[in-house]
Amino acid sequence: MATSSLEQAIAERLDDLLDLVTRLCRQPSVSAQNVGIEAMAGLAAQELEAAGVSARVLRVPGCDHPVVYGEARGDSPKTMLFYDHYDVQPAEPFDLWTSPPFEPSLRDGVLYARGVADNKGNIGARLAALRALRSVRGSLPVTVKFFLEGEEEVGSPHIAAYLETYQELFRADACIWEGGGVNWQGAPIVILGAKGMVSLLLEASTAARDLHSSWATVVPNAAWRLVWALSALKGADERPRIPGFADGVRPPTAEERAAVLALPDEMPLARREFGVTTFVAGAEGSEATMRHYFAPTINIASLESGYLGEGLKTVLPHHAYAKLDLRMVPGQRPEEVMAQVRRALDEAGLADIIVSQLGPGLPAGRTPLGHPFVALVSTVAQAVYGLPSAVTPTMAATGPMYYFTDVLGLPTAGVGVEHPDCRMHAPDENIRLEDLLRGTLMIGCLLERFAE
Amino acid sequence: MATSSLEQAIAERLDDLLDLVTRLCRQPSVSAQNVGIEAMAGLAAQELEAAGVSARVLRVPGCDHPVVYGEARGDSPKTMLFYDHYDVQPAEPFDLWTSPPFEPSLRDGVLYARGVADNKGNIGARLAALRALRSVRGSLPVTVKFFLEGEEEVGSPHIAAYLETYQELFRADACIWEGGGVNWQGAPIVILGAKGMVSLLLEASTAARDLHSSWATVVPNAAWRLVWALSALKGADERPRIPGFADGVRPPTAEERAAVLALPDEMPLARREFGVTTFVAGAEGSEATMRHYFAPTINIASLESGYLGEGLKTVLPHHAYAKLDLRMVPGQRPEEVMAQVRRALDEAGLADIIVSQLGPGLPAGRTPLGHPFVALVSTVAQAVYGLPSAVTPTMAATGPMYYFTDVLGLPTAGVGVEHPDCRMHAPDENIRLEDLLRGTLMIGCLLERFAE
Repeated sequence: MATSSLEQAIAERLDDLLDLVTRLCRQPSVSAQNVGIEAMAGLAAQELEAAGVSARVLRVPGCDHPVVYGEARGDSPKTMLFYDHYDVQPAEPFDLWTSPPFEPSLRDGVLYARGVADNKGNIGARLAALRALRSVRGSLPVTVKFFLEGEEEVGSPHIAAYLETYQELFRADACIWEGGGVNWQGAPIVILGAKGMVSLLLEASTAARDLHSSWATVVPNAAWRLVWALSALKGADERPRIPGFADGVRPPTAEERAAVLALPDEMPLARREFGVTTFVAGAEGSEATMRHYFAPTINIASLESGYLGEGLKTVLPHHAYAKLDLRMVPGQRPEEVMAQVRRALDEAGLADIIVSQLGPGLPAGRTPLGHPFVALVSTVAQAVYGLPSAVTPTMAATGPMYYFTDVLGLPTAGVGVEHPDCRMHAPDENIRLEDLLRGTLMIGCLLERFAE
Repeated sequence: MATSSLEQAIAERLDDLLDLVTRLCRQPSVSAQNVGIEAMAGLAAQELEAAGVSARVLRVPGCDHPVVYGEARGDSPKTMLFYDHYDVQPAEPFDLWTSPPFEPSLRDGVLYARGVADNKGNIGARLAALRALRSVRGSLPVTVKFFLEGEEEVGSPHIAAYLETYQELFRADACIWEGGGVNWQGAPIVILGAKGMVSLLLEASTAARDLHSSWATVVPNAAWRLVWALSALKGADERPRIPGFADGVRPPTAEERAAVLALPDEMPLARREFGVTTFVAGAEGSEATMRHYFAPTINIASLESGYLGEGLKTVLPHHAYAKLDLRMVPGQRPEEVMAQVRRALDEAGLADIIVSQLGPGLPAGRTPLGHPFVALVSTVAQAVYGLPSAVTPTMAATGPMYYFTDVLGLPTAGVGVEHPDCRMHAPDENIRLEDLLRGTLMIGCLLERFAE
């Protein structure tokens, strides 16, 4: 089958595809606010069925955000698993949207809606690709399965339970991940990895209540103890001080480093846009790039203690907390990092600091650059987009890719319909029709070539 | 004149004294909320005049809380200056008051009202002592002056300006300070000093806005920089790390140490009441007592950065702040401490941290234990209360005593009408009538003896 006939079949069905994506985006499905989740799961299952994919709504105990599973048989014995999610970020602040977030609006070849880039446009592209393949060749070249998650935007807390409970459903030979698209140069991005994450709450409590600060002579101050606890985790040189933390890090391979250095350098743009004069530890050029993709992080996201009103109140706070997110790279394990943090505090004389984990931890996942599936995806992408693929060994961000790369053991690659100004998680989230069409063609061609 | 005739004159006028204190307390005068200040200043001046004290309302530019000055001639060439304040703490939370805070209520020999202990009861006692002295002996034994401040509860920001502008008015030979009373044993407390204070705002800013925390690889996190800045000021061993900070501290004299050790040990009670198992740096017994009275403090009163809502938001905060109060002891100067903090941060590679001073700094003030005025006050107090005085070289808390001890150069001692359960700054603030009567007699006897 020639790419051109598939491309034509996709283009002819653009209105159907737009209708499908519009229906998906019109249904709010904000997991963080528990809005529209059940309705969205039902709609997703219905749209799978309408596209000739048998759908099941899967549930596990304690989770109100079901996984929508889909399966459609193909000619070859090979199976491709699609990982996507039907939940979206909150749309607030509403007043910064040019058109209402849940009323999809097409303007100048750009479709605006909450979730259209992350990740309902991709769901639409995958289904449209199946329809086009069937119209051109009468069948699917390979078996396809769908794993449509309903709590990606809240950290996928039950993904392990779904995979364990329904493990036999998810047998496959490779996985297409939710995210990808084109970079500023128009080259197709192929994402092969995601960092892991462990989120911690650190709490210091020193007295029964806040006191007049003249007692600071003898009564321990919770804010100070928190400050020292945090200092025991990372020093002013930005180096982790957690014993064993860096030991676990599996350094990137020479190929991974080379792949990242071949990507367009986004650091100058980031520095300008973020108004940052000096990067962490003075990192410049390729050093900054290497840090960004391959270094674990210890980030303070929240810090609170004492009197937060106007002016000064001379109070000795009896309670203080910090919330941290630690992004891990391959070789690090959430449970080990938790234990290392505990040990670091104990050794620093801060055994009184309470450390609790916020949500389940998630290890990093990465598909080796040398895997034949990576070459296949890159080659198909170059053919579809006309530019060499921007093969990205890992995102700096986190996603539950580990469950697919390591638990299911699948080579996994992210391709999609996004472009650099698609404003994920922000007002005026959007995708361009040209990216929607190319992203659909990419899936169709990939399934064709995967069957070979 | 015998003490007994003065005592009798005071007791006979108790109803007048209660009426006076009730009038003073019925007028709200919350400096932090700017409520009733001008009316209170007028009332205070009126009450001074009614007690035979010529009153003037003093003003300085930029200050809406006037000082009420009073003066009444006496027989001897000596002059006693009374420092008191007519402003009070906010009365919130109102619902924790048994009777409304600005409707003085007498129950079982205890008078309840906001400000009755801190410090309107003392104003009443001083005026009642003058009336009793005049009734018994026809005149005042010494000249008395009043400095009634209207912003003590907000840190006395203009006290220096008042003393400079009206310096000739405040010439005196000694000063009676606002606070004192009895301890749990019923012994009279004589306070000879107060710590100083400098309040600081530390701010870290690292980017134009909060970012997705995956950028923690390269973008500096304001919360981390604040944590390191704070760690550069005090270490987990509770020792100041500010270069030069401890050098300035003038250690207590052997007499001051002995005086503090002679006081009832309040540390076991504090530990129990505050729910504290271990004091700072494991201090026990007399070591804790010494720290409490004589050590400077570096206290974090406020700490804030990043996302303060429920759950976790993986954000990289671009701004963070802490508010600190540093209580200083004699030998330390606010401007030097400010410079030391700046230098400590610069030397720690944290020159980007912005340090600003919140309000004017206040040095510590202390009257030497060996000053003859201290012996006089102690002797009179023992005679009035029937127990040896609890001579307290300094409070652990702060007050503008420095302006009287060091700027005006007056021996200064705090005596008053408080008792340990008088709930200053809290709901159900109160004084006992017996303490009001004895506090009045104390002033009367002291003025008598001061004339000799």
